[in-house]
Amino acid sequence: MKQAARSVRHKSRVALLLVEVINHFEFPDGKDILRRALAIAPPLARLKKRARAAGVPTIYVNDNFGQWRTDTKKLLQYCLRPKAPGLHFVEQLQPDDDDYLILKPMHSGFYQTPLDLLLRELGASSLILSGLATNSCILCTAHDANMRHLKVIVPRDCRTARTAREHGQALEHIVAMADAKVVTSSSSLRLGTLHG
Amino acid sequence: MKQAARSVRHKSRVALLLVEVINHFEFPDGKDILRRALAIAPPLARLKKRARAAGVPTIYVNDNFGQWRTDTKKLLQYCLRPKAPGLHFVEQLQPDDDDYLILKPMHSGFYQTPLDLLLRELGASSLILSGLATNSCILCTAHDANMRHLKVIVPRDCRTARTAREHGQALEHIVAMADAKVVTSSSSLRLGTLHG
Amino acid sequence: MKQAARSVRHKSRVALLLVEVINHFEFPDGKDILRRALAIAPPLARLKKRARAAGVPTIYVNDNFGQWRTDTKKLLQYCLRPKAPGLHFVEQLQPDDDDYLILKPMHSGFYQTPLDLLLRELGASSLILSGLATNSCILCTAHDANMRHLKVIVPRDCRTARTAREHGQALEHIVAMADAKVVTSSSSLRLGTLHG
Amino acid sequence: MKQAARSVRHKSRVALLLVEVINHFEFPDGKDILRRALAIAPPLARLKKRARAAGVPTIYVNDNFGQWRTDTKKLLQYCLRPKAPGLHFVEQLQPDDDDYLILKPMHSGFYQTPLDLLLRELGASSLILSGLATNSCILCTAHDANMRHLKVIVPRDCRTARTAREHGQALEHIVAMADAKVVTSSSSLRLGTLHG
Repeated sequence: MKQAARSVRHKSRVALLLVEVINHFEFPDGKDILRRALAIAPPLARLKKRARAAGVPTIYVNDNFGQWRTDTKKLLQYCLRPKAPGLHFVEQLQPDDDDYLILKPMHSGFYQTPLDLLLRELGASSLILSGLATNSCILCTAHDANMRHLKVIVPRDCRTARTAREHGQALEHIVAMADAKVVTSSSSLRLGTLHG
Repeated sequence: MKQAARSVRHKSRVALLLVEVINHFEFPDGKDILRRALAIAPPLARLKKRARAAGVPTIYVNDNFGQWRTDTKKLLQYCLRPKAPGLHFVEQLQPDDDDYLILKPMHSGFYQTPLDLLLRELGASSLILSGLATNSCILCTAHDANMRHLKVIVPRDCRTARTAREHGQALEHIVAMADAKVVTSSSSLRLGTLHG
Repeated sequence: MKQAARSVRHKSRVALLLVEVINHFEFPDGKDILRRALAIAPPLARLKKRARAAGVPTIYVNDNFGQWRTDTKKLLQYCLRPKAPGLHFVEQLQPDDDDYLILKPMHSGFYQTPLDLLLRELGASSLILSGLATNSCILCTAHDANMRHLKVIVPRDCRTARTAREHGQALEHIVAMADAKVVTSSSSLRLGTLHG
Repeated sequence: MKQAARSVRHKSRVALLLVEVINHFEFPDGKDILRRALAIAPPLARLKKRARAAGVPTIYVNDNFGQWRTDTKKLLQYCLRPKAPGLHFVEQLQPDDDDYLILKPMHSGFYQTPLDLLLRELGASSLILSGLATNSCILCTAHDANMRHLKVIVPRDCRTARTAREHGQALEHIVAMADAKVVTSSSSLRLGTLHG
């Protein structure tokens, strides 16, 4: 059996991570997060579009929601069913054919997933970290990236949390302790390319 | 966002691992392995059936074949298309709805995958290790299991490699160095339950 | 060569972690942290004494300070030299002969260290997390423990950070997001034994 | 607290690993391994000397022998005491002041150790893998290196196992399955520099 890891479709010093955007929002505080998430969907969709145009790979880093089936399509269908609470959020941010998908079992995108290996394959040393939620999966992923000497870039308008207070404190913490740079989404790509 | 990892559908001291059985056999030496793999498909299918009847979870541990899409269904369809070289092998060993699926990027089932976490969730401390190929993914997975103090059980008739010689040497090595027990497939379940 | 991991000297459902207490405080903000650290040294020393009396293992989880020599004794001597800034702090918290020592290269006590394996060997499922600094190594270690389903217990008076604000925010975050329990140091041992 | 990992003393595309050479040989089959190990000590010592002259970093990757104290000095003293069985072996291969030391809890040099991070710090993408024993720690470390896309170079005369048969089979396996190159010790450095 050979290792199949060598066939990534991009080479790029920066990668765009979309954390937990394929989401059913069916968990405690789901409604609170969804309400705030809807506000970041348009800038996030624009950022993804710009990344694509620039040849920057987009990686969906998503909870497996306890299914252990690694069947992203089924999860996507569930989140996009007509009555899904997050339908309007998820439909703006659907994965394209050349995006990458990583299912994570816990909070950090690096814990027991192949994210580290995928980033090495892509040649990426900078991450643009976007999605949900600033004080949970984003924060854990930022720390794990920093411990791997990956540069973390945070587009200010592309992440959120349950409350403005939690979001603000987590952002401040990530900048101070995980060495992240906070920028506007429109400047994040340029920065990643420069620092990668 | 909450961790979703707690919702496994089994509790069992032993788990059955099927390594690389959802396979397109389109790699160097693929034909050699397929020829030998066909011989282990029937006992493997029987072992899986017995595991199911006994409430023992089956975990498919499969290569992502460089797709990075975590889309097992698509991979399965590809391996089961009418002209697929391994059609007759794969169709005997298709995953059922309550099986678990792990996509691995490299040789070992534990490297950058959530297998370790899934086994903890299941409560499994013994692994019945079956599939392809004895001297590659099976050997690496056996060592990684042994380093995690998991007991490795090897059903003699449910694994193979490119050649009888490679298979034999690897089996001898796994028993000596990864503390594995070689048994017949019919006795492996009982042993796992005893030692789990 | 055999694995040597099986010879731990304790069996306990709870373990006491002392993070970064063998410290030279020779880094930016080192003076600020030291000033606040001196206040937690006496309760921390008492907690360690109680743990020992109760048969609860103490694990020092310490930065390797870039030395890559795994020579804890040398590091200890350096931190205890007559002119060391942190002499008065470190001398209250020196490791005993039956304590365990883990050198970590980065922030989290789990990242590229054998802490996970040591805890499995000890049988510990609860951690009492103490030391420096609340919003950095403690926070990262708490998240990594939570992702491994380890119960985190935080003795209120045994941890600190550069400022009261950073300490307070980090504590609030750890409780909310890493499912930790904040208690007085005197009740932490009892709690660990109950929940372990 | 800052991360201290950035202060390695070398930059090199290749690193020399000495596996299990600080050894007390007090385990089953220890005498058999020691007898064969004595034959590789002189070429190994010469290889280490050449590495040093070429600015290639030497990393000792050693068992912690269940002590969990990360006190390499004490372990070294024990292995060098007048009546130590392996005295004559270990004294030829003592670490120098600018060598690196990694204590591993299990077989592979990568499992729950900072070896991966240290190699990234050094900039090393090739490993010269030497020491004990070919079919155990060396084999596991070779596979783990290969899964990390590190190039493995095997100096033929600098490794051994309990028996010539086990050594030979393991060497053949490592070359076939972990993509390693077997060379003479005198050519390994040059090769590493070329391929790094």
